[in-house]
Amino acid sequence: MADVLILGTVALDNIETPFGKADNAMGGSASYAAMAASFFCRPAILSVVGEDYPKEHLKLLESRNIDISLIKKEGKSFRWEGYYEFDMNEAKTRKTELNSLEGFKVNIPENYKDVEHVFLANIDPELQLSALKQLKKPEFIVLDTMNLWINIKKKELLEVIGKADILLLNDGEARMLFNTTNLVTAANKALALGPKGVIIKKGEHGALLFMDGRHFSAPGYPLENTKDPTGCGDSFGGGLIGHLAKTRDFSEPNIRKAIVYGSAIASHNAEDFSVNRLKNITMKEIEKRYNEMKEIREF
Amino acid sequence: MADVLILGTVALDNIETPFGKADNAMGGSASYAAMAASFFCRPAILSVVGEDYPKEHLKLLESRNIDISLIKKEGKSFRWEGYYEFDMNEAKTRKTELNSLEGFKVNIPENYKDVEHVFLANIDPELQLSALKQLKKPEFIVLDTMNLWINIKKKELLEVIGKADILLLNDGEARMLFNTTNLVTAANKALALGPKGVIIKKGEHGALLFMDGRHFSAPGYPLENTKDPTGCGDSFGGGLIGHLAKTRDFSEPNIRKAIVYGSAIASHNAEDFSVNRLKNITMKEIEKRYNEMKEIREF
Repeated sequence: MADVLILGTVALDNIETPFGKADNAMGGSASYAAMAASFFCRPAILSVVGEDYPKEHLKLLESRNIDISLIKKEGKSFRWEGYYEFDMNEAKTRKTELNSLEGFKVNIPENYKDVEHVFLANIDPELQLSALKQLKKPEFIVLDTMNLWINIKKKELLEVIGKADILLLNDGEARMLFNTTNLVTAANKALALGPKGVIIKKGEHGALLFMDGRHFSAPGYPLENTKDPTGCGDSFGGGLIGHLAKTRDFSEPNIRKAIVYGSAIASHNAEDFSVNRLKNITMKEIEKRYNEMKEIREF
Repeated sequence: MADVLILGTVALDNIETPFGKADNAMGGSASYAAMAASFFCRPAILSVVGEDYPKEHLKLLESRNIDISLIKKEGKSFRWEGYYEFDMNEAKTRKTELNSLEGFKVNIPENYKDVEHVFLANIDPELQLSALKQLKKPEFIVLDTMNLWINIKKKELLEVIGKADILLLNDGEARMLFNTTNLVTAANKALALGPKGVIIKKGEHGALLFMDGRHFSAPGYPLENTKDPTGCGDSFGGGLIGHLAKTRDFSEPNIRKAIVYGSAIASHNAEDFSVNRLKNITMKEIEKRYNEMKEIREF
């Protein structure tokens, strides 16, 4: 069994940034999130890949103590091809091939239905809703999404937001979803939908938490060498749920800590292509960066 | 005599934002900076206004214990007319009338030449250089600028950067001046020009300090009601130099504190038009916000 169930995508990515490129690299929201969560506990990925999905990618996941038994194999793999321009703030999509993702239905085996911690990583909100319907009574649910679902499945997205404990949005998504430029206003509107807390991810500017009438501002880690920001949001979410599942403490002060762990992992992730950095860092390096993040905000 | 000499503009502003408008309002980099610095010490403004400049504006400055004896009166006042669109991140200029500013020459009286603390607020870098040439040996110099001077007087700006102790830039200016999107790289390039420290102002995202091989990340104060961001950068700089001049401690840890005081004042400034908020807040309110900024970054 697993400590965290992660629903999301497992993809093959072709990525180009001003600092190089990677082809047929492991990608997808669930891959990044599970790699990040695996520093703290045992995650299970709920997803689908094609029959063509490289064995070494799946082996890497397994080697990290990630339960891959809920990854279905069917048809051709989901592929994403994207690039970043000089400012690297926004991924531009060249091509998306849904392939096996298109007909993917969530089907959770009986013995996984009482999982306690759930990360609904970025994927179609209908699948996120379907997963929640099948689970018995998860103790803590973290939800992520992307601008695409705000545009084409807003109704379903709003429904699943109402069922989540913590909602993750990046600043652009928060402004778009709640039709305001003010992030405090956006966060208040998000909280009105039901979640206990809202986290707004701001990339290099850090992250904000709004919960229990309080506000937390996590600093961004000052990175000089960003090679590929793909998966930073996913690994942030994975690190966050991983720390929460490990500590089983869902209080606001511990969510602050979880955010900083998520940021520490996400900042490492940006230092190399695909999951290349995540597969090499150690918990000691994560702790070191966590402590550096204490130091940089001291006054 | 004054504790801080502030060179900058004293303007008449016509401002329009999505939340209202203000006409013939007190504006200019030195006005905002001096109002902010006056919470900590006695600033003197070195500037020029027109014969038409409203007496009540000058009286307001005087009532805040600001030395206005170095404000020359000549011709017509410098006027700026601008507006903000919905996102309020960037001021758009409708019209600039330099008027008396055009022929302005810096002329520092003998008895002000041994001033210890200097804020070179946003103004032509040639005037900033001229001020530094006339001063005897100021102990601490803080320098601000704007994108206009990066575009049309880069050589002079680089020269004055070399003479400053602390350089202030907003993130857009830092990226533009050093031709990089990475703020750590920009800060390192700035430090190579000579200043002891560089502060990158990021508006709602807070501010960064790079100094003594260390990095500080100040949170942005979460404002829900921003009415007019005009002068936030100037009042940030004024609060910063004010705290430093009062404490006479120019160490990195104290500059961190000065940044948070500057941010606390700047966040108040955005809550109303022109200097309307700055003229009403109390030191107690500033201290309260300073302490809130400790709380929001705790983990």
